[in-house]
Amino acid sequence: MFRKIYDEELTNGQCYGNLHYLCKNIGQRLSGSANAQKAIDWGKKLMESYGFDKVFLQPVMVPHWVRGAKESGVIIDNGKRIPVALAALGMSVGTPAAGITANVIEVHSLKELDTLGEAKIKGKIVFFNRPFDPRYIATLTAYGIAGDQRNLGPAAAAKYGAAGVVVRSLTESIDNYPHTGATHYDDGGKKIPAAALSTIAANQLSALLKKNKGVKFYLKTNCQMLPDAPSFNVVGELKGTENPNKFITVGGHLDSWDLAEGAHDDGTGIMQSVEALRILKAMGYRPKNTLRAVFFINEENGDKGGEKYADLAAQNKEDHIAAIESDLGGFTPRGFGFDGASPELMNKINRNWKKLFEPYGSDHLVAGGSGSDIGPLKAKFAGVQLIGFSPDPQRYFDVHHTPNDVFENVNKRELELGAASMASLMYLIDQHGVK
Amino acid sequence: MFRKIYDEELTNGQCYGNLHYLCKNIGQRLSGSANAQKAIDWGKKLMESYGFDKVFLQPVMVPHWVRGAKESGVIIDNGKRIPVALAALGMSVGTPAAGITANVIEVHSLKELDTLGEAKIKGKIVFFNRPFDPRYIATLTAYGIAGDQRNLGPAAAAKYGAAGVVVRSLTESIDNYPHTGATHYDDGGKKIPAAALSTIAANQLSALLKKNKGVKFYLKTNCQMLPDAPSFNVVGELKGTENPNKFITVGGHLDSWDLAEGAHDDGTGIMQSVEALRILKAMGYRPKNTLRAVFFINEENGDKGGEKYADLAAQNKEDHIAAIESDLGGFTPRGFGFDGASPELMNKINRNWKKLFEPYGSDHLVAGGSGSDIGPLKAKFAGVQLIGFSPDPQRYFDVHHTPNDVFENVNKRELELGAASMASLMYLIDQHGVK
Repeated sequence: MFRKIYDEELTNGQCYGNLHYLCKNIGQRLSGSANAQKAIDWGKKLMESYGFDKVFLQPVMVPHWVRGAKESGVIIDNGKRIPVALAALGMSVGTPAAGITANVIEVHSLKELDTLGEAKIKGKIVFFNRPFDPRYIATLTAYGIAGDQRNLGPAAAAKYGAAGVVVRSLTESIDNYPHTGATHYDDGGKKIPAAALSTIAANQLSALLKKNKGVKFYLKTNCQMLPDAPSFNVVGELKGTENPNKFITVGGHLDSWDLAEGAHDDGTGIMQSVEALRILKAMGYRPKNTLRAVFFINEENGDKGGEKYADLAAQNKEDHIAAIESDLGGFTPRGFGFDGASPELMNKINRNWKKLFEPYGSDHLVAGGSGSDIGPLKAKFAGVQLIGFSPDPQRYFDVHHTPNDVFENVNKRELELGAASMASLMYLIDQHGVK
Repeated sequence: MFRKIYDEELTNGQCYGNLHYLCKNIGQRLSGSANAQKAIDWGKKLMESYGFDKVFLQPVMVPHWVRGAKESGVIIDNGKRIPVALAALGMSVGTPAAGITANVIEVHSLKELDTLGEAKIKGKIVFFNRPFDPRYIATLTAYGIAGDQRNLGPAAAAKYGAAGVVVRSLTESIDNYPHTGATHYDDGGKKIPAAALSTIAANQLSALLKKNKGVKFYLKTNCQMLPDAPSFNVVGELKGTENPNKFITVGGHLDSWDLAEGAHDDGTGIMQSVEALRILKAMGYRPKNTLRAVFFINEENGDKGGEKYADLAAQNKEDHIAAIESDLGGFTPRGFGFDGASPELMNKINRNWKKLFEPYGSDHLVAGGSGSDIGPLKAKFAGVQLIGFSPDPQRYFDVHHTPNDVFENVNKRELELGAASMASLMYLIDQHGVK
């Protein structure tokens, strides 16, 4: 069965062509944008074209943040003005129309911020510059560790009266792309403008600050929050022949940041998800349980799609056996992470399934995380097994949340092997459960 | 020890910068060319700069094939002339100055050629068009299976009186790069001109032939064989403290095809090899046995460097315990193949070593092939274990032997992880042997 799944995908695969359409004919699709709606409409039509048993939309309100006109950032070193590459952080407020100009204080952690306190921070632009730790083989770990600067740094700096925040981009790569991403203000807390600097710009600013503590920074961003907007998850399913009301879901997120095509984040994930169902249908496979592909909306700045999906599933008593998420890029599959799985379950999975995945290189089956779109299912279904697709992680943060996250950086075979590995895992769970 | 090796490489790695120099400041380096000599001189200086215990050159004569002026290929369909992307095969003879124009016969195997025979082939240009089989997860297998067309096709077609040969490029990728590579004429057999067509050109020619059997092809190549040229292997070593006359070698090939920078083939292999020794030296590791990094010359069109290395090792009674070759690209490491290893040895290796490599993802330790540069050691040392480095194989044949095999297609972390995995394996073998 595995061999048939992989043969179908490697000879008749359609996810690479579909991804091309999504990236080039639609492109960026931030929640609430007209392009997001275009992608929703196209996604629904695509699933219908494959003749799935049921295709439908789930309405959900989403945050609607807009970047506005392109930002600007300038280092001012003894009167010399050096423009740098930067991008406003998602969900951040804009600067006043004239921008802000202030002295800069470089910090490397939230703790250091606390140590410096209001006396050193008030009125300044806080520059978070802790780099990725390259020693983690799993780049997601380095991202998680460096990520507090972007996620929580602006809110924390605001408490001490900072005028604004610039953050080193969350990547190990030394290049000139700013990596955007969401930041989170405290409820009721002060909101200050915040932007990501490219790593080259961050290195430059840091070097200049070492020579001259009087370096200033000019920041001008034009972003704003609009009222929440109506949007949708897209859902397609192959109906179960034995247990139509038991579900195995595979999905990714349809929305992307506004700066690029959202190829690896997460065009690959949604195209692999619909492909997993297409493969099984093309083979004439009749599932025991209902198999679903879901394009979740709003993973990047709100997770409203994932929450709505879980709410509706609970409301409609759609018993979920398992859910698989693909949101770490369309690179060569290495395996799957089983969220919160016991050592006993992992032993069983490895005893029975590892050898099946070995010839396809997707055999690292480990206890681990899953993903934020399927996460909310856990609170609704005690028995659900959440699973994260684990592609090779080395290149993801080179392109993540940048204008360089484009179709050309996706490899056809790598993408297809991922789709086939997801279809294979769905098949195994459909046949044998995962308990 | 593994952790220290990986930390050293991921924080202080130099192979990516070295590869940049090789690709951008030297570039293509076909055997016998002035650029190959530049690369040899630079490689020796690089090893010397790392303070290895001994750095030296091994003189060896190599074939000297030159492409000459750029080739041209034109499909002639009812008088309409359609230029296509193609490149002469390495070691092939050139056409007469006026080129050759002839009818085309499309074939898919050497067997089909035999079936057609002289009556159908004489005077024509034979077009080998069997595509890569995409179903092989290991793309090297697909390459091996499709490769007879390029390696042996021209010699076989010459026997039936063909005027020339064009071969579909050995890749699954559908693009407009011709993939060159060596072809082998029979000793004393007739030599006819031969060139690789891009896959797009091959598809186009095939489609036109389906409509019009009278399609002709114009082929003009300007290549020729010059007399053998003097060249060198570059060798650096860290002297063994216990067994200075027992050797563990790691290497790749210094020469590349003339069309590109030879980044993945095999700039990455040689830069990883010298890096493996640099890492161990930087850590202050004192090896029991002598560790060697070797830049072999002439892998692409003669294997003279590998043969010379083995000859000299035997002559100098340098007992080789093991040799590791990296010549499948600088992609994320997946593991190692142990040439001709018994099931007992593989069980032992997996029992003792697999868990060490698992955290670094380089844990597919299997019986398998090694590489053509270290291959000749086998006949000289009964006890030597040959080992092939196995990176992720999905992208290699997208760039292999094309103008697109450039530095930009190498990822820093992927390259570094490979170098660290090689250093780790050398360390294990140095400590424990591999028997």
